[in-house]
Amino acid sequence: MTPDAAKVALSRQEIELPSWAFGNSGTRFKVFTQPGVPRSPEEKIADAAVVHSYTGVAPSVALHIPWDKVEDYAALAAYAKEQGVRLGAINSNVFQDDDYKLGSVTNPDPAVRRKATDHLLECVDIMDQTGSRDLKLWFSDGTNYPGQDDIQDRQERLAEALREVYDRLGDDQRMLLEYKLFEPAFYTTDVPDWGTSYAHCLELGPKATVCIDTGHHAPGTNIEFIVAFLLRTKKLGAFDFNSRFYADDDLMVGAADPFQLFRIMNEIVRGDALDPDAGIAFMLDQCHNIEEKIPAIIRSVMNVQEATAKALLVDRDTLRAAQQSGDVLGANAALMDAYNTDVRPLLAELRESQGLDPDPIAAYKRSGYFDQISKDRADGQQAGWGA
Amino acid sequence: MTPDAAKVALSRQEIELPSWAFGNSGTRFKVFTQPGVPRSPEEKIADAAVVHSYTGVAPSVALHIPWDKVEDYAALAAYAKEQGVRLGAINSNVFQDDDYKLGSVTNPDPAVRRKATDHLLECVDIMDQTGSRDLKLWFSDGTNYPGQDDIQDRQERLAEALREVYDRLGDDQRMLLEYKLFEPAFYTTDVPDWGTSYAHCLELGPKATVCIDTGHHAPGTNIEFIVAFLLRTKKLGAFDFNSRFYADDDLMVGAADPFQLFRIMNEIVRGDALDPDAGIAFMLDQCHNIEEKIPAIIRSVMNVQEATAKALLVDRDTLRAAQQSGDVLGANAALMDAYNTDVRPLLAELRESQGLDPDPIAAYKRSGYFDQISKDRADGQQAGWGA
Amino acid sequence: MTPDAAKVALSRQEIELPSWAFGNSGTRFKVFTQPGVPRSPEEKIADAAVVHSYTGVAPSVALHIPWDKVEDYAALAAYAKEQGVRLGAINSNVFQDDDYKLGSVTNPDPAVRRKATDHLLECVDIMDQTGSRDLKLWFSDGTNYPGQDDIQDRQERLAEALREVYDRLGDDQRMLLEYKLFEPAFYTTDVPDWGTSYAHCLELGPKATVCIDTGHHAPGTNIEFIVAFLLRTKKLGAFDFNSRFYADDDLMVGAADPFQLFRIMNEIVRGDALDPDAGIAFMLDQCHNIEEKIPAIIRSVMNVQEATAKALLVDRDTLRAAQQSGDVLGANAALMDAYNTDVRPLLAELRESQGLDPDPIAAYKRSGYFDQISKDRADGQQAGWGA
Amino acid sequence: MTPDAAKVALSRQEIELPSWAFGNSGTRFKVFTQPGVPRSPEEKIADAAVVHSYTGVAPSVALHIPWDKVEDYAALAAYAKEQGVRLGAINSNVFQDDDYKLGSVTNPDPAVRRKATDHLLECVDIMDQTGSRDLKLWFSDGTNYPGQDDIQDRQERLAEALREVYDRLGDDQRMLLEYKLFEPAFYTTDVPDWGTSYAHCLELGPKATVCIDTGHHAPGTNIEFIVAFLLRTKKLGAFDFNSRFYADDDLMVGAADPFQLFRIMNEIVRGDALDPDAGIAFMLDQCHNIEEKIPAIIRSVMNVQEATAKALLVDRDTLRAAQQSGDVLGANAALMDAYNTDVRPLLAELRESQGLDPDPIAAYKRSGYFDQISKDRADGQQAGWGA
Repeated sequence: MTPDAAKVALSRQEIELPSWAFGNSGTRFKVFTQPGVPRSPEEKIADAAVVHSYTGVAPSVALHIPWDKVEDYAALAAYAKEQGVRLGAINSNVFQDDDYKLGSVTNPDPAVRRKATDHLLECVDIMDQTGSRDLKLWFSDGTNYPGQDDIQDRQERLAEALREVYDRLGDDQRMLLEYKLFEPAFYTTDVPDWGTSYAHCLELGPKATVCIDTGHHAPGTNIEFIVAFLLRTKKLGAFDFNSRFYADDDLMVGAADPFQLFRIMNEIVRGDALDPDAGIAFMLDQCHNIEEKIPAIIRSVMNVQEATAKALLVDRDTLRAAQQSGDVLGANAALMDAYNTDVRPLLAELRESQGLDPDPIAAYKRSGYFDQISKDRADGQQAGWGA
Repeated sequence: MTPDAAKVALSRQEIELPSWAFGNSGTRFKVFTQPGVPRSPEEKIADAAVVHSYTGVAPSVALHIPWDKVEDYAALAAYAKEQGVRLGAINSNVFQDDDYKLGSVTNPDPAVRRKATDHLLECVDIMDQTGSRDLKLWFSDGTNYPGQDDIQDRQERLAEALREVYDRLGDDQRMLLEYKLFEPAFYTTDVPDWGTSYAHCLELGPKATVCIDTGHHAPGTNIEFIVAFLLRTKKLGAFDFNSRFYADDDLMVGAADPFQLFRIMNEIVRGDALDPDAGIAFMLDQCHNIEEKIPAIIRSVMNVQEATAKALLVDRDTLRAAQQSGDVLGANAALMDAYNTDVRPLLAELRESQGLDPDPIAAYKRSGYFDQISKDRADGQQAGWGA
Repeated sequence: MTPDAAKVALSRQEIELPSWAFGNSGTRFKVFTQPGVPRSPEEKIADAAVVHSYTGVAPSVALHIPWDKVEDYAALAAYAKEQGVRLGAINSNVFQDDDYKLGSVTNPDPAVRRKATDHLLECVDIMDQTGSRDLKLWFSDGTNYPGQDDIQDRQERLAEALREVYDRLGDDQRMLLEYKLFEPAFYTTDVPDWGTSYAHCLELGPKATVCIDTGHHAPGTNIEFIVAFLLRTKKLGAFDFNSRFYADDDLMVGAADPFQLFRIMNEIVRGDALDPDAGIAFMLDQCHNIEEKIPAIIRSVMNVQEATAKALLVDRDTLRAAQQSGDVLGANAALMDAYNTDVRPLLAELRESQGLDPDPIAAYKRSGYFDQISKDRADGQQAGWGA
Repeated sequence: MTPDAAKVALSRQEIELPSWAFGNSGTRFKVFTQPGVPRSPEEKIADAAVVHSYTGVAPSVALHIPWDKVEDYAALAAYAKEQGVRLGAINSNVFQDDDYKLGSVTNPDPAVRRKATDHLLECVDIMDQTGSRDLKLWFSDGTNYPGQDDIQDRQERLAEALREVYDRLGDDQRMLLEYKLFEPAFYTTDVPDWGTSYAHCLELGPKATVCIDTGHHAPGTNIEFIVAFLLRTKKLGAFDFNSRFYADDDLMVGAADPFQLFRIMNEIVRGDALDPDAGIAFMLDQCHNIEEKIPAIIRSVMNVQEATAKALLVDRDTLRAAQQSGDVLGANAALMDAYNTDVRPLLAELRESQGLDPDPIAAYKRSGYFDQISKDRADGQQAGWGA
């Protein structure tokens, strides 16, 4: 693709921000606090809008229920619109209640399963109010010890809950089923890999698709293979972007392995799935434990943009010709040529053409926003993962 | 299950031996030779029959084509019968020809794909002659470098070849599709995980099922979860048993992690899938690079038996009651109680009741068979993986 | 070793309990509470004494500062003695203060380093009062992003702090330097592996030795190799026992891979390092997130005992003869013969001979202790990791 | 560093080529042959000289004994000189003889140990003749099964052999001790990690240093940490460069994770260890199983150059200032700014200033060398790993 064509594609790109990334997070060892952290869903949305104002490609904010529970979701949507963004996916939370110690929808206790499923249904109610298309489901459900519970039984319970929620979805609503290898469960996890998610989505129907969190795989897993496979079978629904060196580190996307992010975006471009119309949601899902949150999120958005730009610049004809002729080094070189290109000037030009500052981080720093929120939000309870 | 009931179940167990495990194997660094190694399919079958004669649970031998290519498969089957065993699964080989450098059924070159698919079809012809039920497919196909070939295209080519072979299967024939994370391909593998195999099998139809090789997973993968999942969806067709500490080490099954083998067999017992009538093939697929081959295979068969015996002894009522009541420690203890039991006396009793020596290894050593084959097979070309 | 000799060795075994394992713990997603959880160091010690009263091999309790900070350590030691146990290692904590966001003794800010080192020195002061021999050092220090800090500089800062603390140790005091691959730091960790710990201990001198936490390694690491290597070089100081399937899961020791635990204890027995006089501290360091804490700790102690008993029963002469003669299968069989032995009867006999109940878990359950503490400790702040 | 200063540093860089990378290699499944592969040490050297002629930074060739055994090493050195290169490190091989089935210098049989040590001493003899500085030691020694041999005994045997060889080294000769997690041994490896190599080198003395093969680590290992640590302790001797996605894939360096290669070179530059005078040998050690060998090696050399150029361009003052002030994002950005730079124009300029073609791959392809060797070397036995 020519640089100009790439700019057009890049100008249409959309990256969804997670409200919770603006709040405090940490590890089991410590949650470090930071000045200026939001105290309410509205303040998270305001921060997200700031990110969008500097990058131009982050027009929506995903909510997390109950962390972002409000009385009036229509009002929240209106507030978001005022800020220049819209509400995105609704993320359910069935892991932060003492009742869920042994699982939520897969719990051996039917009463707990009922409570968990009701929460998921409530999330669909919220979607009706926010106008959200996507219900994102991540289950921490699993077991810590061999024998603790019956693996097959738990699959049946899972299938049952998913079915009930699926049937509740409206015509324009979708279910995104996320998978994760481990943590917080340490022996079995009920949706541990893409295969499990895929199989359930297939059983459920066309409104159910797989969500790939880039930090949720076993070591050595080839994520772009999964992307390609799910694109082929029309079951890729969304990404939760972040990066990791070890487990689910939730670092800034592109920070740990920028080449992997490029390879993922390369499959997206190859599969013609970048455009919002293609129906794949590109979302961040990160924890900024030690770094300042807003600039970290701006950086993350830019990292996705840069990987995308490189993927768009791949000379597809050269690549395909080399592939078809069995030219291993030539095909690899065609890909690497794009990866090795410095696309920052191209993105700076794109931003300028959109009336944005070519350097979003510098512009944000100059803005004084951080000093302002540090002062304004000095009191009160900072948002975080706290149940 | 009571010990007596366990003995009945154990007496019906069948473990298939791979002909190639009796030949030389090694790593890319060195294949060490051993005295007494077979020089022909017949000699491999003779060795397998020896293993069966001491263990009583290894009545069939899997063949590998072309390593076990013969003129007359009916004669080979008759020979096996004379030795007291039968011919089992046919394993195809589309990885040891220079043409397959860039893949077999997924090769960008249609001529190579044709050649590979023809080999698979030839394997079905052989099945017709041997009376084998199962065609085992393992593809080394993949790429070593990003960009080398198109992931989605390769999936299409794979699907096409599988379909052609599937359609050729007779009414009583099945296709077992094995997956493997990596090796010999180092960037992408075309069937890298159970999800990929499962998805293709689902597309193909009821005669296609997944084969789990216990050494083919990413680090940290919970294999018994996959077993349970595939049992639930009726898509588990077979095991290739072996064990590993790191990658596809192909050590004796149960040697690296006997507790894992027990957990796998526990899912089999729980899913009522042990009996040969359940249609799951339990096969060894190992490399005895440095240890003597026949006793290593006897040991492997015994390891599977011991893990099975422990799984059969699990007190299912106690286990289920603890699981249902959320008694984490109680449920784990119910499982561990069986695992910690020394089942060797029970298996010795079983063997004696079957007219076998209670100690197969000692009996084999006393037999003088090794000395005999070391002398008889001193000349000629030892069997191995050599193309 | 004969069963009788094994019993003598087992009767001298000592396993140290961590005070914090009796408090609440969890993951970043949720800390589940439990009834009866201690509210003070004294209550933790009381619970530990209960474990010792049923197992007979857990006579000491490790403290964690500041979690177990008290006014009068001599009084605490006296209280422990009354309960039938003694105070063990002092565990420092330089990871739960906002100041330590970018590290403690390796922090780029000298003031933070001073504060952290002062805490370590304070721990030695406490050791003087408790009579503890061992200072256990675990540093969460590291970085999350490439470039965040200078790896070599951090090593220099670490060496400097260790030296200052080492020089403060009394004649009978020791420093145990723990290592950990990752978490909470996700890019670099300043003491990530045994090699780093070993190198620093070597520089420091004979009072500094390595502490092996069995959950702190990269996937595929052979822990018993490290044990053997450190025994050979006299630098093994202690174990933090737990088990894991994935990362630092902190499950009950022996729960995830009982064969690994056996292999570790086998190296200990082979190296003549089991006896308390050998100077190696065998400590638990676990998190009982979802299971009842006291019986989980009793189970853990029993798991170590069982692995030890099996290791003691290895027929060393047979093993060595097979090893020396290159009999791969024979040597492996000699080891497995001991592993496959059910040692629970032997341990039951040992307990009875010591006036203990042969079944510690059942005896604990009958005791009514759990009901008592659940009632007594219904109010107040449960102990946990909370800073 | 300015681009001009970077060019000066880059012009002094030296990357050593392994003779064996020009020969055939493969996996245990298949070694694919290629046209034009060398049939003798001389032809390998000729090919290496071609790589040097196009890149200008690969002036030496490492030999592998016995693969490169010749009658007259002085003549071989003279031949190399004529071709424009010199002989580099001598790589010993004690893994391809049936005698080494259970180990070489750690074998339980003293006769085998003697034979293996004699081979190492013979390699030093060869070094005397070739004028090589470095003896590279990699031992495949280890065990496949728990109990197979005694871990501590094997360490003693290893130490003894290393000592004998160390004492034989001349004043200007060095020993490089490589480590590897696994393969071909699958349970224990006698030098499995940098800590083991480091400890032995420390015992041996200043002429013994660690060799880091970038493909020899457990998943998740931070290699640049090891680089930084060994630089600090003056025990880094050499690199064996290659890349991998899974295990020891031996792909082209920089192909699997170019960002990792950059981070490694960044530690080298930061530690002032790039210059040949610093005494660190930068060697390739790769297998070009499916791609054409000479252009793959040219590409590998260029990948190292590009990573080095980026590392040299890091603004060290900005980086250090951000690190010192705890500016996590700023420090990371300083590093990434260099990584994201397209350094290919700078390297093209450098080559032109040296009278080289700016595009070595294109120049090689135009040269007709491949057609020539394909024709010239059509007969005879291609070089490979064959024992």
